[in-house]
Amino acid sequence: MSAFRFEKTVRFGDVDHAGIVYYPHFFHYFHVAFEELFGAGAYQRILDEQKIGFPAVHVECDFSRPLRYGDRALIDVSVVRLGDKSATFRYVVRTVDNEDVVCAQAKITCAVVDMQTFSAVSTPAALRRLFDSFKEVEAVVDV
Amino acid sequence: MSAFRFEKTVRFGDVDHAGIVYYPHFFHYFHVAFEELFGAGAYQRILDEQKIGFPAVHVECDFSRPLRYGDRALIDVSVVRLGDKSATFRYVVRTVDNEDVVCAQAKITCAVVDMQTFSAVSTPAALRRLFDSFKEVEAVVDV
Amino acid sequence: MSAFRFEKTVRFGDVDHAGIVYYPHFFHYFHVAFEELFGAGAYQRILDEQKIGFPAVHVECDFSRPLRYGDRALIDVSVVRLGDKSATFRYVVRTVDNEDVVCAQAKITCAVVDMQTFSAVSTPAALRRLFDSFKEVEAVVDV
Amino acid sequence: MSAFRFEKTVRFGDVDHAGIVYYPHFFHYFHVAFEELFGAGAYQRILDEQKIGFPAVHVECDFSRPLRYGDRALIDVSVVRLGDKSATFRYVVRTVDNEDVVCAQAKITCAVVDMQTFSAVSTPAALRRLFDSFKEVEAVVDV
Repeated sequence: MSAFRFEKTVRFGDVDHAGIVYYPHFFHYFHVAFEELFGAGAYQRILDEQKIGFPAVHVECDFSRPLRYGDRALIDVSVVRLGDKSATFRYVVRTVDNEDVVCAQAKITCAVVDMQTFSAVSTPAALRRLFDSFKEVEAVVDV
Repeated sequence: MSAFRFEKTVRFGDVDHAGIVYYPHFFHYFHVAFEELFGAGAYQRILDEQKIGFPAVHVECDFSRPLRYGDRALIDVSVVRLGDKSATFRYVVRTVDNEDVVCAQAKITCAVVDMQTFSAVSTPAALRRLFDSFKEVEAVVDV
Repeated sequence: MSAFRFEKTVRFGDVDHAGIVYYPHFFHYFHVAFEELFGAGAYQRILDEQKIGFPAVHVECDFSRPLRYGDRALIDVSVVRLGDKSATFRYVVRTVDNEDVVCAQAKITCAVVDMQTFSAVSTPAALRRLFDSFKEVEAVVDV
Repeated sequence: MSAFRFEKTVRFGDVDHAGIVYYPHFFHYFHVAFEELFGAGAYQRILDEQKIGFPAVHVECDFSRPLRYGDRALIDVSVVRLGDKSATFRYVVRTVDNEDVVCAQAKITCAVVDMQTFSAVSTPAALRRLFDSFKEVEAVVDV
């Protein structure tokens, strides 16, 4: 496995009335990590030049430990499944101060779509290679 | 079944670079609907006076049709499961212009916690009665 | 003077680490009030059909009393100045619980632009009439 | 003058229905730059340990060129005025791709307050020294 790691500092305005990160913001954090996975500026060019987008179609997330203001979140992104017209990404959130504890874990499935029609298309080869490089490797058990 | 219906107008700033509602905002919409479920101002008093909160611990959501600026979303909230120290809510999103089509559907499990310790507590009786009133009724099949 | 009044409930996720509404959200509140000024759905049609938009070009705001979770803000919008290719709006924020105290007051100047070129255009007559109906009346002093 | 420079990448969800950064987000960008001015994690400790906060009391901003998705904004923060119980900061926004053009410029005055009472207090000496290091130098004109 070769996850992409992204660090996101929790900001003053990210918390809620309970004093912890407002949970919808986790999905924003995941999206920012996703944007960075492509490399600086690349996702914008894929969207605007290749006209390919990745709308979320299914989301699952477990929240196990709150994030608070000042926490520096470490978000590991990996590819769980790479289909022809969709892909499933895993996001695991820990903090710099305690990398042993998982704060949240999500699986998000995105369709691959033509941005003009929102219809599903095959993942372009270059993106397939990129996603492949973050694909989780199944444990090979030699008995 | 007796769902709680909440109408949320999509705002100018809610969309993303793809021109559709940025998907993390759906979870904000769900939270606002959840706040309204308690009645005007009541959730704030539960939090601040009873010191009871409902952090999300598990989220599942399917997105089937994008929302766009100007859409008026109808969000139906119902209670799928009512445990002692947690509850699971269903959110179904349609629009005023086309109530036949589901745009998104989520199941969100919240723990019931003491806001000072974040430890799980039993759902107070008055809230249990409230949630019960939105509980989905299983089909009773007489054979 | 005939201000347009909009009520905005402060939401659970609107606060910051200081426990008060994160000040950038005030500008979101102002924008939502602005959207409602046109009437339900009308601003979206002006943008998408008439291709006219109103980007903010100058903002001034005084914050005099914080808003907190559960507050119901009353936002009064009026037109301070109506130019050919721009208009200045005043936003005054109070709360339902204490209408005597101003929490924030802003003046926001918007350009009137063609949405495709972002170049300034004359305010269409129908919008000029709408804005005129919210124009602040100067005190007429009879000496 | 010795401004503090902060780079902020415009994100996929930061834009509005006009395809440009939703203007309230500029104030979020300014706040993030402000948080970073103190050094990593330091603002959180000032708030939570010293119980000193800096609520905005007056904001002025000119928007002269929109930011778009993918833009990398350069935000220069400097101190315009350093009072005993307040300070005024200037924020100038340009982009990495075109440092010659100012996209937005703001002056934001913050009170210095005790976080428990929200009453004004004198700026602690260490913070005064920090702000001094970013103070704009007036042109000295030798005639």
